[in-house]
Amino acid sequence: MPTITDIRTADVRFPTSRDLDGSDAMNPDPDYSAAYLTLETDGEHHGTSLVFTIGRGNEVVVAGIDALRYHVLGRAIDTLDDVNALSRDLIGDSQLRWLGPEKGVMHMAIGGVVDAAWDLLARLEGRPLWLLLAELSPEQLVSCIDFRYLTDAITPAQALVLLTERAQGKQERIAELRRRGFPAYTTGPGWLGYSDEKLVRLSEEAVARGFDMIKLKVGADLDDDIRRMQLAREAVGPDVAIAVDANQRWDVADAIAWMSALAPFQPYWIEEPTSPDDVLAHAAIRAGLQDAGIRVATGEHCQNRVIAKQLMAAGGVDVFQLDATRMGGINELLAVLLLAARFDIPVCPHAGGVGLCEMVQHIAMADFVAFSGTTENRWIEYVDHLHEHFVDPVRTNGAAYLAPTRPGGGAEMLASSIEDHLYPHGPVWASEGEEQA
Amino acid sequence: MPTITDIRTADVRFPTSRDLDGSDAMNPDPDYSAAYLTLETDGEHHGTSLVFTIGRGNEVVVAGIDALRYHVLGRAIDTLDDVNALSRDLIGDSQLRWLGPEKGVMHMAIGGVVDAAWDLLARLEGRPLWLLLAELSPEQLVSCIDFRYLTDAITPAQALVLLTERAQGKQERIAELRRRGFPAYTTGPGWLGYSDEKLVRLSEEAVARGFDMIKLKVGADLDDDIRRMQLAREAVGPDVAIAVDANQRWDVADAIAWMSALAPFQPYWIEEPTSPDDVLAHAAIRAGLQDAGIRVATGEHCQNRVIAKQLMAAGGVDVFQLDATRMGGINELLAVLLLAARFDIPVCPHAGGVGLCEMVQHIAMADFVAFSGTTENRWIEYVDHLHEHFVDPVRTNGAAYLAPTRPGGGAEMLASSIEDHLYPHGPVWASEGEEQA
Repeated sequence: MPTITDIRTADVRFPTSRDLDGSDAMNPDPDYSAAYLTLETDGEHHGTSLVFTIGRGNEVVVAGIDALRYHVLGRAIDTLDDVNALSRDLIGDSQLRWLGPEKGVMHMAIGGVVDAAWDLLARLEGRPLWLLLAELSPEQLVSCIDFRYLTDAITPAQALVLLTERAQGKQERIAELRRRGFPAYTTGPGWLGYSDEKLVRLSEEAVARGFDMIKLKVGADLDDDIRRMQLAREAVGPDVAIAVDANQRWDVADAIAWMSALAPFQPYWIEEPTSPDDVLAHAAIRAGLQDAGIRVATGEHCQNRVIAKQLMAAGGVDVFQLDATRMGGINELLAVLLLAARFDIPVCPHAGGVGLCEMVQHIAMADFVAFSGTTENRWIEYVDHLHEHFVDPVRTNGAAYLAPTRPGGGAEMLASSIEDHLYPHGPVWASEGEEQA
Repeated sequence: MPTITDIRTADVRFPTSRDLDGSDAMNPDPDYSAAYLTLETDGEHHGTSLVFTIGRGNEVVVAGIDALRYHVLGRAIDTLDDVNALSRDLIGDSQLRWLGPEKGVMHMAIGGVVDAAWDLLARLEGRPLWLLLAELSPEQLVSCIDFRYLTDAITPAQALVLLTERAQGKQERIAELRRRGFPAYTTGPGWLGYSDEKLVRLSEEAVARGFDMIKLKVGADLDDDIRRMQLAREAVGPDVAIAVDANQRWDVADAIAWMSALAPFQPYWIEEPTSPDDVLAHAAIRAGLQDAGIRVATGEHCQNRVIAKQLMAAGGVDVFQLDATRMGGINELLAVLLLAARFDIPVCPHAGGVGLCEMVQHIAMADFVAFSGTTENRWIEYVDHLHEHFVDPVRTNGAAYLAPTRPGGGAEMLASSIEDHLYPHGPVWASEGEEQA
């Protein structure tokens, strides 16, 4: 039975702000980063995960992970119950709870440690995480979920009924994933920092590759957005969906007015129109855009299952964009998948950044097999960026994520990539210091 | 014009878990702590503040404050505009924003730095913070507030009208504060760890001292709560209000059932019945308890102005319990005071802990003078605990906070208290290590 002997952490940052990949209306110059951690054990396997950030403050998440050391050292991780107990103990720590509760840096750090334990469990079982999750029984899935604050939406007993029903046909769906993978959409063409020419070229390439949805960033300047949306619509034709993403830029009235101006180009959804905390504003925006046929999507900044529950229950979202490393780990992501199944909301995970594609595909595939039972109106975001740093990088076929086959949760990075990008003293950053000097 | 030359931080912890002061249903063993900071300048004055935590993880908040160093060093703080610009720049930092946005450790750390700048400004002006805030013009108050995500509730123009109206009679209210202070209620009698005998004795003492409201912790065991509530009601008589506090213990149905069982003893409010993030659950609980005449209070864990706005707009709260160090600093607290004035919700600040009484009295007094215009149905929480560690400790007269007279925001601690309680190597903690060894 492997016992945890150490947590190793690393502050890993990629200087993506140098070429404006990832630029949007609220994030002009992100440096995609990872608060990276490894649970060392006295056994054959280790557990690895990361928390994604966009640069400054990555060291605070690392400090959050280090603060969990005393919870983890000496613990045995051998079974699902061990992982569930770890999740409960970390989230339930009464003193740490004051720092959220269940939100922000401390919750993200807890999520990183919980996910490293899931990675270790998957390695022990010799299976990719999506398959481990997909093959859990309804009872086991219910045992993973903290129902505190959820019972006005769904109780454990109701969850068991729902998941038992959805368990029908699991093996067929697993086979389908292995055969065809999971649908993807691409955000590649639409970063705000790109020229019109690059936008059109990348949009055409996306359609040629088989994507049936692309995404554009909007919200900085309305005239620019109208021009870019028109160019994209001409490039992809009438049958490819175009989602747009405002990255929390607006208040309610702005969101409705701005999106009404873009309505002639048939945006599929408006993503993050306003504050991710504002359940009531999302509901008001959704109501205001219903006649225009524009869906509301959010979730990548959703702090926990309590906000997710409200967004779904209050009619705030048509699409939930779960993030791999924002919440308290996979146990909480399973709670969100359950809520989405309960409220019949498609989950279209946020990805990109560094490692998010590698990690979140496991959650989306488990959703398909064990929770939603369908890939209809569901895509995983895809950005072709930084995959080369991972031990088990995303594999795609046209516009689909292929099902991972290697054991684990997907977050493990190459040792050389970690060393090169250590902040602030790794070679990539040290040389930047010299350039500036 | 004083320029900031350094941020000094300290991890200060008081071993309050040794005697169960501060114990409640969710926080069985808090060690009241402060992530303490001082902005050093090249001038005569410095600026000091703290972020309150309950122990473990205090070092993560310190790391969050340290992460703000590059924003602060070399900045001049001389005017209100300088403080407002600091607040905007810290909260608007696009990379740090990813760690919230506007919640959790990073937001609390930003609040600490912003509040230290307000403390510096008050020292420069030679006035206590409450008076500085109270005498800002309506235009100046509006300039302090970030209206992003608030305009569906109140616009800057509407705020100016409201605050101009409320500015009538400011000088009379300032004189009244100086004469009579601000009403307090006491949580002293009601900690869960206390015996029945201690509960009764402290309740009687509170009434004798003039308090017209006391507070009890509930939520661990219903039979215990019924017995303790009955004892307290007998001790204080029919005319003293008894508030009760569940510290987020329940889901919706539990909250309504539990509080209905306590209704015969006429609780004045139920505080934190459920998750502080759950706007809709608060509205459901409030509706469920309206016939029993029990108010719903929350706010000490409210992460930001966006959740505060929703709680007020959705009918989730009768009383808002603003905390001094949970949000992004005094600028955001002014936004909450404005929202409370807009929605006619009394603000009854959370206090206790270490330094919260010293700090939050300034906000409550500014609320009275410039926002609400009344002390009716308003009290500041009072706990007689740890005040001896402060340079300008709370002064009371019977059941009232007396208006502070010394310049600054109240958070400065005695140098000897800081040194003694440094974690983990200060004498208080080093000796605990020896006892355990």
